[in-house]
Amino acid sequence: MTRTARELAQFLGAILEGDSTQKVAGIASPESAGPEDLIYVDSPKQLDRAACSAARCVIVALEAAVEGKTLLRAPNPKLAFAKAAAWLLPEARIVEGIHQAAIISPQARLAAGVTVGPYAVVEDAVEIGAGTQIGAHCVVGRGARLGERCRLYPHVTLYAGARLGARVVVHSGAVIGSDGFGYVFGDGRYWKFPQVGTVEIGDDVEIGANTCIDRGALGATRIAAGTKLDNLVQVGHNVSIGEHTVIVSQTGISGSSTVGKNAVIGGQVGIADHCHIEDGAICGAQAGIPSGKTIRAGQTVWGTPARPLEKFKEQYAWFARLPEIGEFFRRLKARFPDA
Amino acid sequence: MTRTARELAQFLGAILEGDSTQKVAGIASPESAGPEDLIYVDSPKQLDRAACSAARCVIVALEAAVEGKTLLRAPNPKLAFAKAAAWLLPEARIVEGIHQAAIISPQARLAAGVTVGPYAVVEDAVEIGAGTQIGAHCVVGRGARLGERCRLYPHVTLYAGARLGARVVVHSGAVIGSDGFGYVFGDGRYWKFPQVGTVEIGDDVEIGANTCIDRGALGATRIAAGTKLDNLVQVGHNVSIGEHTVIVSQTGISGSSTVGKNAVIGGQVGIADHCHIEDGAICGAQAGIPSGKTIRAGQTVWGTPARPLEKFKEQYAWFARLPEIGEFFRRLKARFPDA
Amino acid sequence: MTRTARELAQFLGAILEGDSTQKVAGIASPESAGPEDLIYVDSPKQLDRAACSAARCVIVALEAAVEGKTLLRAPNPKLAFAKAAAWLLPEARIVEGIHQAAIISPQARLAAGVTVGPYAVVEDAVEIGAGTQIGAHCVVGRGARLGERCRLYPHVTLYAGARLGARVVVHSGAVIGSDGFGYVFGDGRYWKFPQVGTVEIGDDVEIGANTCIDRGALGATRIAAGTKLDNLVQVGHNVSIGEHTVIVSQTGISGSSTVGKNAVIGGQVGIADHCHIEDGAICGAQAGIPSGKTIRAGQTVWGTPARPLEKFKEQYAWFARLPEIGEFFRRLKARFPDA
Repeated sequence: MTRTARELAQFLGAILEGDSTQKVAGIASPESAGPEDLIYVDSPKQLDRAACSAARCVIVALEAAVEGKTLLRAPNPKLAFAKAAAWLLPEARIVEGIHQAAIISPQARLAAGVTVGPYAVVEDAVEIGAGTQIGAHCVVGRGARLGERCRLYPHVTLYAGARLGARVVVHSGAVIGSDGFGYVFGDGRYWKFPQVGTVEIGDDVEIGANTCIDRGALGATRIAAGTKLDNLVQVGHNVSIGEHTVIVSQTGISGSSTVGKNAVIGGQVGIADHCHIEDGAICGAQAGIPSGKTIRAGQTVWGTPARPLEKFKEQYAWFARLPEIGEFFRRLKARFPDA
Repeated sequence: MTRTARELAQFLGAILEGDSTQKVAGIASPESAGPEDLIYVDSPKQLDRAACSAARCVIVALEAAVEGKTLLRAPNPKLAFAKAAAWLLPEARIVEGIHQAAIISPQARLAAGVTVGPYAVVEDAVEIGAGTQIGAHCVVGRGARLGERCRLYPHVTLYAGARLGARVVVHSGAVIGSDGFGYVFGDGRYWKFPQVGTVEIGDDVEIGANTCIDRGALGATRIAAGTKLDNLVQVGHNVSIGEHTVIVSQTGISGSSTVGKNAVIGGQVGIADHCHIEDGAICGAQAGIPSGKTIRAGQTVWGTPARPLEKFKEQYAWFARLPEIGEFFRRLKARFPDA
Repeated sequence: MTRTARELAQFLGAILEGDSTQKVAGIASPESAGPEDLIYVDSPKQLDRAACSAARCVIVALEAAVEGKTLLRAPNPKLAFAKAAAWLLPEARIVEGIHQAAIISPQARLAAGVTVGPYAVVEDAVEIGAGTQIGAHCVVGRGARLGERCRLYPHVTLYAGARLGARVVVHSGAVIGSDGFGYVFGDGRYWKFPQVGTVEIGDDVEIGANTCIDRGALGATRIAAGTKLDNLVQVGHNVSIGEHTVIVSQTGISGSSTVGKNAVIGGQVGIADHCHIEDGAICGAQAGIPSGKTIRAGQTVWGTPARPLEKFKEQYAWFARLPEIGEFFRRLKARFPDA
């Protein structure tokens, strides 16, 4: 949708400098932008990228200077750009209408404007909120409930009874509500512990491609509103994740652990069972949190087993000097053989 | 199915105390249980949870005391609960009948009671044992063979020729029999090493969502009876895994490695190629087993590169003291500058 | 296809010794081979395996001796075997013809010899090159382009606009072109950063099962010709990977990082954002490359944070001796309490 710089400034609450009638029709990186594409730069080092760009309208920080452009000044240019993009670009539709090659149970209830792609299967007693899009090949199991304006890309599987809030986005290959990994050993074999709980996903959650979220064993697995999961993440049974938390690709969270709100969990982090990652904690990439451990609110941890970042850095700096320490140790040992 | 406490006690071989006519119709956690739900507690600390529960019938340890409940005493309450759950709850069916929108080759042989969900594809020369359920959207490739009473959830892919024993459970998105990752570099490019072997899954194996098991290159990839794989696990070509072994989420096992029976492999473990994890070995979460290494039977290892747990703990305790050692080293160095 | 030893020798440029009329009809491992199967051995230790095999024709190194066999001598027997296998074995077809239960947009353009399996969905404006096979249940999104002779196994998802070169092989469950993981935090919640870029896969790339490759945010994610990705690999937005690079299972590459050509990335490696892995670098399994780090051309790194292999080995050797150093430190401390 084409807007003027003035309209954009008003929408963003940004300070406008330059040609307020400048048209903005799309977004781009500085290098690939055309004249009517909006761009942004958020560090002084990148001002040159903006200056050299064909784009006529640039979102910049409050104090930045770029010659010959229409400027939209905002305290957080990247944030303003993200908001502008969502406003300018119509969200690409996953599927239009209800495809005749979708199989929808007569016992399912679809609200107004629901669309369902080819070969999708919607089982009995499913409820789907208004405007939700179910991509091609999705399977929505018995009794699952989805809120309004969810977006399921092709090949998503919701096991029976899974519950999604409003505006949940699920990427291809994600599996929600599969059995948790629980067995009891006895009589020389493993017996399956019942995995009959539920899974509840809050509003505005986004779930990456091929990510797996197990149902609870007896209780629920819960992911609260606004939380974002990257691709190939594993969420075990009875895990609870708070609001507005970010979990990067290939991280695994074992059974019954909790992650608070506003936490940041890096890529390939391993959180063992019954851990508590409190609100606002940060776990660096590849960190390993041992079973039952608590990471305090706001703490940043690193390494395996995870420890506070400062400690990790200090220990690691000495680790790097180990050969030097070791050699000195060898010489001292020769000098004090009786020690 | 509703049972009495007496019937349950008989089935479990448990010692009954209290009202033997008490009806039990389901299972639950102590907190969510209704009067006719069975619950269990397995540590003295949890007896209060049982006492406060609405459940009237509780599985407890031999020596435990809970007032006002009908007790089923068993040496391993969690195991008894798992067995009771399997007995009380009818296994949820994945699919009923053979859906008209399934494509089944006339050359496939389906035994009695096989069910196939919508949009499933069963190719030529497939053999499927009695009572097996093929979920919606599964693809069963040419010549694959499945034993009796297997359960394939939606979106499982079996490549041509994959073989599954009886009662194998496969969760959504799992891929069984894909090409192994084998190439030979020559003339400036990679040439594919032939990946034309087989994959054989034993009875009672359970395979998690989005787990990948590659076929053998020339020989076979084998997973023996009773072994359980969590979600997002990778099993490379020509790997062999013994009976009753447990492999937690996101672990990867590289080509030609072997894992014995009754082993426990934690989450995110990396086992390089040509390793041997012997019977009963335990690999802690995130452990890394270097190429060609053997972990002896019954040994517990930790860390990367993996070493025995006691050694890991000792080394790690000193690692945590490195800053202190380093400071002392600095002072000694000043005192013995010629050392 | 049956060949004679002479034909094979000519094709491979190998030196023939023995019966040039010996027929070769297949390939196998020495243990499972029949008389007309070709085998190879590439180390002196394995010559016995060849000698005991039923196979009559063996590819061996230039200097190796095996009694009673027809020998094909090549400088790299494994490479010669891989080439011979590709020549002898017809590539198994994924799908024949265009299945009537495939949904192909009238706006899609399919070149000669394209085959499409049951329940595959090919959306508007897709272009597919000659001889490409689209497996059952694949979803090829709007505007995607595939070159000649690609092979998509069942259940592959290509998001809108994905571009694949010629002879690209994609295994089941792989997702190409999903949204990158990019958000901006503001006003107490995460805002999606636009993920509207492209993904471009070069010729002869192979992509493993359940691997995820995100589209660029504004620009492109690129994987160059001849590169091979194993199963469950994660490639973030705007990543660029050069030619003939190998990436083992469960490795993750975060946004905007680059990997050069001829690199080897082991399994479960984590490459944080904005890293540069230069040409020919080798990252050992489970290595962790911190954000923004460069690994120089040809360097081999290990560990987290990754460091040169020799340094890792030296530091690690001293790490294993830490208990000994620590004890000596304790005794010295007693002897020099004032230090």
